[in-house]
Amino acid sequence: MKNFPFVSLRLLHLWLTLIVIFTLSLSASAQTTKPSSDEAMVRKIYQQALTDGRCYPWLEYLTTRIGHRLSGSATAAQAVTWGQSMLDTLGLDSVWLQPCMVPHWVRGAAEQVRVNGAKSGPFALHALALGGSVATPKTGLQANVMEVKTWAALDSLGAKGELKGKIVFYNRPMDPTKIRTFEAYGGAVDQRVFGASRAAKYGAIGVLVRSATLALDHYPHTGVLIYDTTLARLPAVAISTKDAEKLSQLLQKEPKITVSMRLNCQTLPDAPSFNVIGEIRGSERPKDILLVGGHLDSWDVGQGAHDDGAGVVQSMDVLRYLKRIGYKPRHTVRCVLFMNEENGGRGGAKYAAEAERKGEFPLCAIESDAGGFTPRGFSFEADSTVFKGFFAKVKAWQPLFEPYGLTISGGGSGSDVGHLRGMKGLLGGYLPDSQRYFDIHHTAADTFDKINKRELELGAASMAALIYLLDRYGL
Amino acid sequence: MKNFPFVSLRLLHLWLTLIVIFTLSLSASAQTTKPSSDEAMVRKIYQQALTDGRCYPWLEYLTTRIGHRLSGSATAAQAVTWGQSMLDTLGLDSVWLQPCMVPHWVRGAAEQVRVNGAKSGPFALHALALGGSVATPKTGLQANVMEVKTWAALDSLGAKGELKGKIVFYNRPMDPTKIRTFEAYGGAVDQRVFGASRAAKYGAIGVLVRSATLALDHYPHTGVLIYDTTLARLPAVAISTKDAEKLSQLLQKEPKITVSMRLNCQTLPDAPSFNVIGEIRGSERPKDILLVGGHLDSWDVGQGAHDDGAGVVQSMDVLRYLKRIGYKPRHTVRCVLFMNEENGGRGGAKYAAEAERKGEFPLCAIESDAGGFTPRGFSFEADSTVFKGFFAKVKAWQPLFEPYGLTISGGGSGSDVGHLRGMKGLLGGYLPDSQRYFDIHHTAADTFDKINKRELELGAASMAALIYLLDRYGL
Repeated sequence: MKNFPFVSLRLLHLWLTLIVIFTLSLSASAQTTKPSSDEAMVRKIYQQALTDGRCYPWLEYLTTRIGHRLSGSATAAQAVTWGQSMLDTLGLDSVWLQPCMVPHWVRGAAEQVRVNGAKSGPFALHALALGGSVATPKTGLQANVMEVKTWAALDSLGAKGELKGKIVFYNRPMDPTKIRTFEAYGGAVDQRVFGASRAAKYGAIGVLVRSATLALDHYPHTGVLIYDTTLARLPAVAISTKDAEKLSQLLQKEPKITVSMRLNCQTLPDAPSFNVIGEIRGSERPKDILLVGGHLDSWDVGQGAHDDGAGVVQSMDVLRYLKRIGYKPRHTVRCVLFMNEENGGRGGAKYAAEAERKGEFPLCAIESDAGGFTPRGFSFEADSTVFKGFFAKVKAWQPLFEPYGLTISGGGSGSDVGHLRGMKGLLGGYLPDSQRYFDIHHTAADTFDKINKRELELGAASMAALIYLLDRYGL
Repeated sequence: MKNFPFVSLRLLHLWLTLIVIFTLSLSASAQTTKPSSDEAMVRKIYQQALTDGRCYPWLEYLTTRIGHRLSGSATAAQAVTWGQSMLDTLGLDSVWLQPCMVPHWVRGAAEQVRVNGAKSGPFALHALALGGSVATPKTGLQANVMEVKTWAALDSLGAKGELKGKIVFYNRPMDPTKIRTFEAYGGAVDQRVFGASRAAKYGAIGVLVRSATLALDHYPHTGVLIYDTTLARLPAVAISTKDAEKLSQLLQKEPKITVSMRLNCQTLPDAPSFNVIGEIRGSERPKDILLVGGHLDSWDVGQGAHDDGAGVVQSMDVLRYLKRIGYKPRHTVRCVLFMNEENGGRGGAKYAAEAERKGEFPLCAIESDAGGFTPRGFSFEADSTVFKGFFAKVKAWQPLFEPYGLTISGGGSGSDVGHLRGMKGLLGGYLPDSQRYFDIHHTAADTFDKINKRELELGAASMAALIYLLDRYGL
């Protein structure tokens, strides 16, 4: 043959056969028995999601037209209006806004953080004020820097009076050997949340925190801090991991350098806002609620695409799938777009208080707030009796989830649905793959282009499939 | 509190507790019993990969400094030299090149494909000649277009003589409802591989094929075609899915439009090339080979990052992990960087022929050629006795894989290791998540920036963990 002049026809055919076998063999195994009605319904849900989903274009609008949407901001208000108007198009039984007051923190003009006095000359650090931080004085502040990696090191330096008048630099990295990145995050984020007040106790005047990420790059990662109100409030910023490494190395050689910080943040009076809620009323047990939700607010950088625009649009699409398929739930299936998960949790608290007041039972509440990546499963928590009963059922459902690569495990749920913890229902968290999440979490890089359409749709379908089974079989 | 003036301290603390519980609960469950030596070794391998891996910087060099590397090209030769020199740094027992002759197809000047005669004016299609395609006449060719979605439609039109002198447009999409995208690929790629000759049979003069992808965008996806040498060879191009949709809609309204094609491809004489091989010799059974491999060649667009630079650097790092940990394998552990997977499989064929000649036994050969995405598991094939024995062992290993999210299933392996099929060993395919793979497969978008460092490293660690268990327990 002219195209492959030195290859025998036999070899070419062998190779071709191998390619075909390779391709087919990576496929799912063939269906040989008649599918059960559950199997068929689950498949129908995935087919609906993958051929006629809306979550992806919805997310494109929310993230690229409205953008980031911190509680109290004009864009958060736009997101509320948008959420309600989209739910209004779905033919649900009710769509409403649930009012709640939210914190209203504003970053102000961009923060400036610089290293001064280094032999190689001054340079800027990639920095973002932490959410809730106070401003520096208008002229900024400047001081020497003390690096610490542990609370013990902080306490030891503090006890010797060495933190007085200094800027404390928390530089404990996330542990890359944790397989689930949330575990690595849990092992580092305390620096960000509590660092300012623990440094204030020892007379420090400002705080730098290494960004909570496993990536080594120039993105600073913001996120909430909590002040101990009995102590001075220190201005605090996250700096990028590359800058944290650079600063750490510099401090080894030139401990006398200073850092100057200027932050222009402000906490305004609380602002009115809303949870956005839509539901399909249950035909048999309308007061038993199957909830899917995500949070509508985001940090004030990037577009809040994975955190948590993804969870919002997935939750909305779950209700839409059920409507499109014509499924009439026995229990009420409700989608809640929570407000203010990031810096106060007021929406979650308000929802729980209202549920209690109305005597609703949160049969199961599932939150999607870990990104829009490829589905790995769900984790659930509940009182031990409920938990045992549920996991007995899950065992029977496992073959239904297997083709979709889902694993059900015990564990946490979500911080919004967590407010329902006292009400004896089942609380679940949707678990997408976690490897890429903290690369972009709370940064300017959490944008729509990081979303894969199919991964987003598969997540929504996974939530809908679980809601279907819970509706059919109860707890 | 001034920062949250209207929130009670109780609510704030509740919210904080919820966040902490949420974070911790998403973590892996704690280790309570003493780990077995296998558990400890598997953990050590993952720790090595995640804290001191080389696959990511290796891949950066291969993809961004060398670039794409089609068989017979200068960059393919550079990749061989690079692979050998990198393996030479690892302190292996042997590193060598295994010569093989490879097809040498060149694209030539960029292909031009245009739609003419449309009311709205002429326009260009985003197109890539299929690998192996012949050129058009120097002045190009032009003809009316017949769209088909099935072989039956082709045969029916052909039987009526309606394809004579026409350009056939294969427009069967990949099925989005398949969960594993390889299955969807398997259901559409026959158009690309066989379309040209099946159209030639009916007197067509050129072929357009819808790109094999689930994404709707402007990237054309190339890939190999196979000519039936008894028929005329038609020039054939892939067009982007957006252009396929546009052309299809246009043909409904304006069936008389024409398409003009100019392709400048050439098949040169076969060129000398090499598989690159490195090994750690087995202390007990050196002629029993545990193989990990990927393919060094790629298509001549993009950077060949996921296909298959990822598999190459993962396979190299597997051997490096074992060396760094100081593990001395009982069997020979060998890394093979195959040449020419994409358009001939000559490297795989040569490797198998040499293995047979030397009397080596491929105890297990694992190929990574499905992308560098987050690990989902492995699929294995073997003769039924070997297969049964292996799966009995896998059952015991399952708890070792669980923390890493790996599932072992029956299925295909890889097209390079598939050449070993007659030799009674176990053949495996590494299975990363497949959702994003076909978005970039064989396109200009298969570039290094699509690689996530941790996902790549976790894949290499998964392969190394499996090799360790196979080495320790045999088949």
